[in-house]
Amino acid sequence: MDIVYLNGHFVPRDKAMISPDDRGFVFGDSVYEVMRWYGGFFFDMDGHMNRLRRSLHETRIVWNDIDTFADLAEELVNKNDLGNDCSLVYVQVTRGAAPRNHVFPDPAVSPTVFASARRQSVDTLLWERGIAIAVAPDPRWNRCDIKSTALLANIMSLQEAHDNGFMEVCFVRDGFITEGAHSNIFLVRNDTVYTHPESNFILSGITRKNVISLAAENGIGLAEERVAADIIPYIREAFITNTSGEVIPVIRIGDQILGDGTPGDITRKIHVLFRDKVMAGSPVH
Amino acid sequence: MDIVYLNGHFVPRDKAMISPDDRGFVFGDSVYEVMRWYGGFFFDMDGHMNRLRRSLHETRIVWNDIDTFADLAEELVNKNDLGNDCSLVYVQVTRGAAPRNHVFPDPAVSPTVFASARRQSVDTLLWERGIAIAVAPDPRWNRCDIKSTALLANIMSLQEAHDNGFMEVCFVRDGFITEGAHSNIFLVRNDTVYTHPESNFILSGITRKNVISLAAENGIGLAEERVAADIIPYIREAFITNTSGEVIPVIRIGDQILGDGTPGDITRKIHVLFRDKVMAGSPVH
Repeated sequence: MDIVYLNGHFVPRDKAMISPDDRGFVFGDSVYEVMRWYGGFFFDMDGHMNRLRRSLHETRIVWNDIDTFADLAEELVNKNDLGNDCSLVYVQVTRGAAPRNHVFPDPAVSPTVFASARRQSVDTLLWERGIAIAVAPDPRWNRCDIKSTALLANIMSLQEAHDNGFMEVCFVRDGFITEGAHSNIFLVRNDTVYTHPESNFILSGITRKNVISLAAENGIGLAEERVAADIIPYIREAFITNTSGEVIPVIRIGDQILGDGTPGDITRKIHVLFRDKVMAGSPVH
Repeated sequence: MDIVYLNGHFVPRDKAMISPDDRGFVFGDSVYEVMRWYGGFFFDMDGHMNRLRRSLHETRIVWNDIDTFADLAEELVNKNDLGNDCSLVYVQVTRGAAPRNHVFPDPAVSPTVFASARRQSVDTLLWERGIAIAVAPDPRWNRCDIKSTALLANIMSLQEAHDNGFMEVCFVRDGFITEGAHSNIFLVRNDTVYTHPESNFILSGITRKNVISLAAENGIGLAEERVAADIIPYIREAFITNTSGEVIPVIRIGDQILGDGTPGDITRKIHVLFRDKVMAGSPVH
């Protein structure tokens, strides 16, 4: 049985219905998070909740019960018998349902809160083999720091990359690499790992933040600096990060094979550190 | 009774429910149109249908029954007893419902088609008084030519303008005026009307196209040329166009009062021509 959460109730997925007047449906007027449950605990739930608070604040969507969500997410996992499984929990908060009008409903309506859980292991084959990523102009708006569901730009770019045999796309804005359609990007040059600094042009990834901390704690050189796309030919190693995939080696960017075409040493080292940190979370729960 | 159309059925609005797995809800992966019913006929239904076809093509959403929609829209109007009323019909087509995954469902799923109608006259007071519009950087993606529901950028910008007492926002990209959050913008200088040419940075408005044709047919100078934002102080007259408002005079842009602060002569002339064209459509039906 697939049980989801909708506005205070746990219901079977096929009974959870959204109004066609919901602003999440009509306007993409909503924000979301995806958290990973490691068969007993969530990784960095605080990080996800803080980012969700920020997305809500920036979009001025008010969800007063956000503090209850961490417990609710665990309840959702358990109701779906996923307590011991590697799973993803999705939560989406919209501005609510109201007659269609671009400006916010006045008076405000209750937000729509939807959450679901599904069994999904990390794809470890990708860790071993690495992936190829495309390069494309960044087509998105100027508030990529908000984790909003208005994702058509990401969808279209990723699909085009997918059609060409790539598993992610490396966006380039004003000549600089920003991030992927659903991941952050790290590039290694001369033993230093580079990633785009936090700004309105990237999402502040939870895995990204943890990787940055781990690098600092373990003497790995890492700089939050923009990298120009035209230095891709000089990149020997790269990886992407996100909640569903953790740290995934990149072995090719567009036509450019990186190094010897296998996952890089620094990438592997960082991923081991990340796995260790994840598993260290286990007893906390 | 408020009757809507959803996937082949006419149902009461409160019975029309969207799956939380719908990609329109989860990703803003959908397109839409809003058409005006003038108590007996739709204005330029062909224009709306052609634009919807284009939006579907560009997003690769397949809706095989689009040719049936014009009749269906009229049926919807009649079922809501709006046959003689000025009304708006809204139609939204999403890529359909599927487990959440950024790439397109493979095999494809049926699109979700939702349509609704509501009584809504044109606000003629705005024609008489004109409106003030804000100026703001264009925060949107680079495919504004697609009429997609991933509208959070438009929503946030318009709300901010609204909070400051403006009824629309004039977007500026790379120093040039593009359009509004939900309208096209026309600026008059030295008796010539300027509007941004069709490109990926504006939506090709149905009212906009008709205004351009009318200007040509009636000897009004109109140029589809970009206007730099820094010439706003030299603008004496402006107006915006969209389906819900037709031709609305702009009397102030940001702090800048245009001319004597009343609707301009060319604006009024164009609006009369537009109204005549609309009403000429009446007998066709």
